[in-house]
Amino acid sequence: MYASPPIPPGTVALEDYEQAARRRIAPEAWAYIAGGSADELTLAANRAAFRRLRLRNRVLAEMTGAHTRLSLFGQELAFPILMAPVAFQRLVHPDGEKAMAFGAAAVGAGMVVSTQASQSLEDIAGVARTQGAQAPLWFQLYIQHDRGFTEALIRRAEAAGYQALVVTVDAPVSLRNTEQRAGFRLPAGIEPVNLRGMAPPPPNRAGPAESEVFQGLLDGAPSWRDIGWLRGLTRLPVLLKGIMAPEDAARAVAEGVDGIIVSNHGGRALDTLPASIEALPLVAEAVAGRVPVLMDGGIRRGTDVLQALALGARAVLVGRPCVYGLAVGGPVGVIHVLKILRTELEIAMALTGRARLEQIDRTVFWEEQGAPAGGSAPCTPPRTPV
Amino acid sequence: MYASPPIPPGTVALEDYEQAARRRIAPEAWAYIAGGSADELTLAANRAAFRRLRLRNRVLAEMTGAHTRLSLFGQELAFPILMAPVAFQRLVHPDGEKAMAFGAAAVGAGMVVSTQASQSLEDIAGVARTQGAQAPLWFQLYIQHDRGFTEALIRRAEAAGYQALVVTVDAPVSLRNTEQRAGFRLPAGIEPVNLRGMAPPPPNRAGPAESEVFQGLLDGAPSWRDIGWLRGLTRLPVLLKGIMAPEDAARAVAEGVDGIIVSNHGGRALDTLPASIEALPLVAEAVAGRVPVLMDGGIRRGTDVLQALALGARAVLVGRPCVYGLAVGGPVGVIHVLKILRTELEIAMALTGRARLEQIDRTVFWEEQGAPAGGSAPCTPPRTPV
Amino acid sequence: MYASPPIPPGTVALEDYEQAARRRIAPEAWAYIAGGSADELTLAANRAAFRRLRLRNRVLAEMTGAHTRLSLFGQELAFPILMAPVAFQRLVHPDGEKAMAFGAAAVGAGMVVSTQASQSLEDIAGVARTQGAQAPLWFQLYIQHDRGFTEALIRRAEAAGYQALVVTVDAPVSLRNTEQRAGFRLPAGIEPVNLRGMAPPPPNRAGPAESEVFQGLLDGAPSWRDIGWLRGLTRLPVLLKGIMAPEDAARAVAEGVDGIIVSNHGGRALDTLPASIEALPLVAEAVAGRVPVLMDGGIRRGTDVLQALALGARAVLVGRPCVYGLAVGGPVGVIHVLKILRTELEIAMALTGRARLEQIDRTVFWEEQGAPAGGSAPCTPPRTPV
Amino acid sequence: MYASPPIPPGTVALEDYEQAARRRIAPEAWAYIAGGSADELTLAANRAAFRRLRLRNRVLAEMTGAHTRLSLFGQELAFPILMAPVAFQRLVHPDGEKAMAFGAAAVGAGMVVSTQASQSLEDIAGVARTQGAQAPLWFQLYIQHDRGFTEALIRRAEAAGYQALVVTVDAPVSLRNTEQRAGFRLPAGIEPVNLRGMAPPPPNRAGPAESEVFQGLLDGAPSWRDIGWLRGLTRLPVLLKGIMAPEDAARAVAEGVDGIIVSNHGGRALDTLPASIEALPLVAEAVAGRVPVLMDGGIRRGTDVLQALALGARAVLVGRPCVYGLAVGGPVGVIHVLKILRTELEIAMALTGRARLEQIDRTVFWEEQGAPAGGSAPCTPPRTPV
Repeated sequence: MYASPPIPPGTVALEDYEQAARRRIAPEAWAYIAGGSADELTLAANRAAFRRLRLRNRVLAEMTGAHTRLSLFGQELAFPILMAPVAFQRLVHPDGEKAMAFGAAAVGAGMVVSTQASQSLEDIAGVARTQGAQAPLWFQLYIQHDRGFTEALIRRAEAAGYQALVVTVDAPVSLRNTEQRAGFRLPAGIEPVNLRGMAPPPPNRAGPAESEVFQGLLDGAPSWRDIGWLRGLTRLPVLLKGIMAPEDAARAVAEGVDGIIVSNHGGRALDTLPASIEALPLVAEAVAGRVPVLMDGGIRRGTDVLQALALGARAVLVGRPCVYGLAVGGPVGVIHVLKILRTELEIAMALTGRARLEQIDRTVFWEEQGAPAGGSAPCTPPRTPV
Repeated sequence: MYASPPIPPGTVALEDYEQAARRRIAPEAWAYIAGGSADELTLAANRAAFRRLRLRNRVLAEMTGAHTRLSLFGQELAFPILMAPVAFQRLVHPDGEKAMAFGAAAVGAGMVVSTQASQSLEDIAGVARTQGAQAPLWFQLYIQHDRGFTEALIRRAEAAGYQALVVTVDAPVSLRNTEQRAGFRLPAGIEPVNLRGMAPPPPNRAGPAESEVFQGLLDGAPSWRDIGWLRGLTRLPVLLKGIMAPEDAARAVAEGVDGIIVSNHGGRALDTLPASIEALPLVAEAVAGRVPVLMDGGIRRGTDVLQALALGARAVLVGRPCVYGLAVGGPVGVIHVLKILRTELEIAMALTGRARLEQIDRTVFWEEQGAPAGGSAPCTPPRTPV
Repeated sequence: MYASPPIPPGTVALEDYEQAARRRIAPEAWAYIAGGSADELTLAANRAAFRRLRLRNRVLAEMTGAHTRLSLFGQELAFPILMAPVAFQRLVHPDGEKAMAFGAAAVGAGMVVSTQASQSLEDIAGVARTQGAQAPLWFQLYIQHDRGFTEALIRRAEAAGYQALVVTVDAPVSLRNTEQRAGFRLPAGIEPVNLRGMAPPPPNRAGPAESEVFQGLLDGAPSWRDIGWLRGLTRLPVLLKGIMAPEDAARAVAEGVDGIIVSNHGGRALDTLPASIEALPLVAEAVAGRVPVLMDGGIRRGTDVLQALALGARAVLVGRPCVYGLAVGGPVGVIHVLKILRTELEIAMALTGRARLEQIDRTVFWEEQGAPAGGSAPCTPPRTPV
Repeated sequence: MYASPPIPPGTVALEDYEQAARRRIAPEAWAYIAGGSADELTLAANRAAFRRLRLRNRVLAEMTGAHTRLSLFGQELAFPILMAPVAFQRLVHPDGEKAMAFGAAAVGAGMVVSTQASQSLEDIAGVARTQGAQAPLWFQLYIQHDRGFTEALIRRAEAAGYQALVVTVDAPVSLRNTEQRAGFRLPAGIEPVNLRGMAPPPPNRAGPAESEVFQGLLDGAPSWRDIGWLRGLTRLPVLLKGIMAPEDAARAVAEGVDGIIVSNHGGRALDTLPASIEALPLVAEAVAGRVPVLMDGGIRRGTDVLQALALGARAVLVGRPCVYGLAVGGPVGVIHVLKILRTELEIAMALTGRARLEQIDRTVFWEEQGAPAGGSAPCTPPRTPV
């Protein structure tokens, strides 16, 4: 049904998919997909932070009956990994989001579809559901300058069977030098089809000596009031994505949102933010269990997933690696990427002696206990919030 | 009017200008301009310190009416970025400081003209003012061994309309191995024209076994007494540039100076000094708001400007990047460099939820709060002075 | 008797053997032997941790009568270094484990023979004993899914004269991307000969949407109950290998084991574990002298051995370097590797003023004492457990 | 008189001499001279520790009458830099130690002549004194297995006019893999001429299974008793070189020595020792001013010298850079190296506002004061001993 090119031999980990995808994706599109903002410090931090964390293994634990199931907003997941929202997936595969949805559904992974999908949200939902999959299907929403169009978009998502709204709040403006240097433009035939028919934004009102940002780009950017408006519009669970500051998380809960996704937009929004995994425990502490906390950013290994769960995430989202799977092997690549990650998570659970997700807590980390040998700097474990 | 060569495509950030300028500037001049002192540890530290700082984003903030205006010594600035004093700008462009002044004035950026300018201070001021610009125009002063000549220089600056004196105090001697290795000499036709007619320094009085430094180079170096003398000579605001130690900042305020510029001379004076941004909060604490504190050294991104303001600077100075802009694109390059930096600052303000400069305080930083995940070493935020 | 190729000139340290072996071993086998799990973070950590530790020298100490002898489980060792269990040594030398045993016996080094040896455990023991060596000969045991076969294996080891059982507990599953990428397969004629005749494992019972790990690979994995069963089966000392967590060490002692080997399986089991040398002092503290603690992982220098002893190890095991010695020079290479390490240990003892192993304690380390010069990060010494 | 090859243009710092020397010295001799022990961790640490230290500049200080003079054991030095003992200087220049002595005397630098000099100690002293130089001339002593010969050597040094004995105590054995790999041997015609006529050491008494180190190489190694013997033999000041541990420093003072040289033998004795500059403040604290403390190891810049003095050294010794000067430019190179370092020290004093050596104390360092900006890890200053 969907093109599934042969996967190169030796492609056994998510980083192998990244290498292979780099050879298959046009350089301009690669700059857009793989790049981050400004100096890409936060992009790099997302990975580096995971590489610094250290686990403690546990031996000879009883693993009978082990599993990775969980429930989220009343929906069942076979494992705590969702496909993150990524725009314009037809950049890497002719069937774009539909091929992605096919792959995700085949392994029972949840999927979050982007406002900027290159295929209609109804078509994508159709693919996801004809597979008979029970996994969550959520819609990612950028609140548009045209609030009426935004409401219509929500109604379409509800009608198409999406089960939650993920409102991205961290990128009203951004600074993407990597894609600018590469001269990235959307190729002919690829566009945000779900935004067709929306009124164009008002013309930039900045005078010659004024600010393009403050007298232009930010017009129409959402504020907390829009979250209240949105919360009143729909009965779907509403999650905010892009929260890093504990204060913002607390405010979001107070505004009635149903979930938080800790994220720095994959290093694509404000550069010099810390890694998502560094913000996660602080946000989790501020939320204090009132709503589920998820995270994305830098997940490449099953040990990363385990660490995120241990620091307060109920589930994680994975973006670029799934796109790389799609680019390399179509839906088969997506399936493979998700299976690798699930299997690696299970291995990490087995080797840390955790038979169920609820058992994954901070004791999985190597703790210094005031007595590490050999200089602790490179393997400092997370500290417990007081 | 001024030569403005085409700017290479993909030149979208200040570091792109640096790469492009390296291809346009003669190697010997490059060594002089881009190099630092000794092992260039401080030169590197200026950039590295900014790269380690981590911000916290804030979402959904109200940004209506946001702007970057400020007032300094009774002068209005559209944004808190000034062109730092840099000597001999004709090394990179035939119109040197005049082309620079034209570019700075076009975007409303303040400019500090060097004692060692390669064009007359009157001509530069003329360009700056014919543009009708309101931005500050300041004169950087090296106190010369000939104090009478120094006084005459001040009178010329006053007469030409300069609005402040920036006295550089951190480099009575220095050690510039990079330019020595490159064999840098001022090319024919480029000289410190504003020092013409000054009496030559007395001959070196060091005997064969004596010290060239202590019995020679330091003769005529200024001391605190000269600051008192200078303070009494002029009604212009006097700033000291090159302060890093809080004790020196406190002394400067006690001596009646009107402003402090935290600087390590762009890594060109004493090597092994810390980054300017590391000294800034200590100096700001010592000054305690009695006079404005500015800083330079390593600013390449709008996030750097935001961080400097958050750590106590009222404004920042940018040197080499403007020179690179001049080398690459003439006044158009200068304008582009300054616009990039201003826009990046505004984006950083928007993504940290700060609508005015006064709102930029230490809460923009990612604070550890005793609970970071993942090992804090690489993203340690600044600590608050007690 | 055994092939001993010429050793390249300039092969004077264990790392030289590694370089030389890389040129002699087929790339697929090299990936299997030298590789670690996943991203090889733990593999790298094992070496990096030793490289960070700093010793303090002591001068003019009395070294008369110095020696490295010790007693372990009633057995005498000339020096505290054993050959670690390594599978399939015929991958690097036609005479495999027998050549290794010959070399180890020649210098009086203890040897631990792997369950996955490529030669019969009886033949290997025969070589070790015909040398007349008194050094310990131990058998490494993977508890097989077939417990009856496992018991028979133990009986064979007892009958062949093995003096202890080393039960590896840290790798019921693992993730070896490096060898997967290299396409490693056991070559024709190399197999785990000591497992011949064992019943095959039951077929994988995982359904299509189920977990290969939790409904398959872990079936038959040992748990603490098996340790009790094993402890009752034999009168040989039983050591558990692969302990990193102090809790597991305490449990092992409570279960009646006779020794602990701190190990992360040479970085081949769970990636993101800390270095073995970082776990050692915590395990030693938990064990509190009730049974001997040994360690392996990253030992390449005599100073590493000294540091391990100072942090609580009675002896160390060395795996890959001995295999590299075997690959490069046959038994002569093994002898050379072990002699280098022993001599380096003696030099380290001499230069830290320790005439006997019992004198090697934490005072060999450079302690900060609150007063290091120059930034302590890279040379942080181990801290004493409270 | 002595061969002085032309010095390449652009040779303006000690590291330039190192680069140039590498091109002039035979690879085997380079491995011997530039190499360290084992993995050269300590060799690298000596430089890295200085590169981490951060100074604070002071501006506008009064520098009238500034100088670098000091008195040591009743001898006057124009500046606090001595030529460290280095063996076999004829490896790099046909006139070896005599050319070195000529250069050192020409600039008034003290010199320590090695027991393993490749020229007679009397000839070297003759060169040093015919220059009319007043700078210290000291003799470095390895206590030989033949104590009678050792005493005779001391008598020769006294008779030749050496003014102090520097007893090296940190290298009774060592591990020089770099020079082993390079196959270094003393070329024909170069030998330790001052040891001619000494009885050969007793044959190695180690049996085949015994230790070459403990039953061989260490026979005849000196102990504290030998220091007492030596102290009673001569009226010259006796310094111990190679002390890193404060306990050893305290013991040395108690044994009546006249000075301590903190040193790790330039990274050539026990690898994994910290940098000399890291040990210096601890040793200085233990000595508490009872005898002068000197240091060597890693000095390449005037700022390094300033930092060493600030951490407790009365003077520093410089080895390899002087040898590189000799290799590159004969005595002229030596003179240039020493002048560069002296001038750099003076610049560092001027820019930190220190007019005399006594003013160089810990306030020259950038102190954190609990409030650095930007993450302090890379510029951590030294902490004050409690």
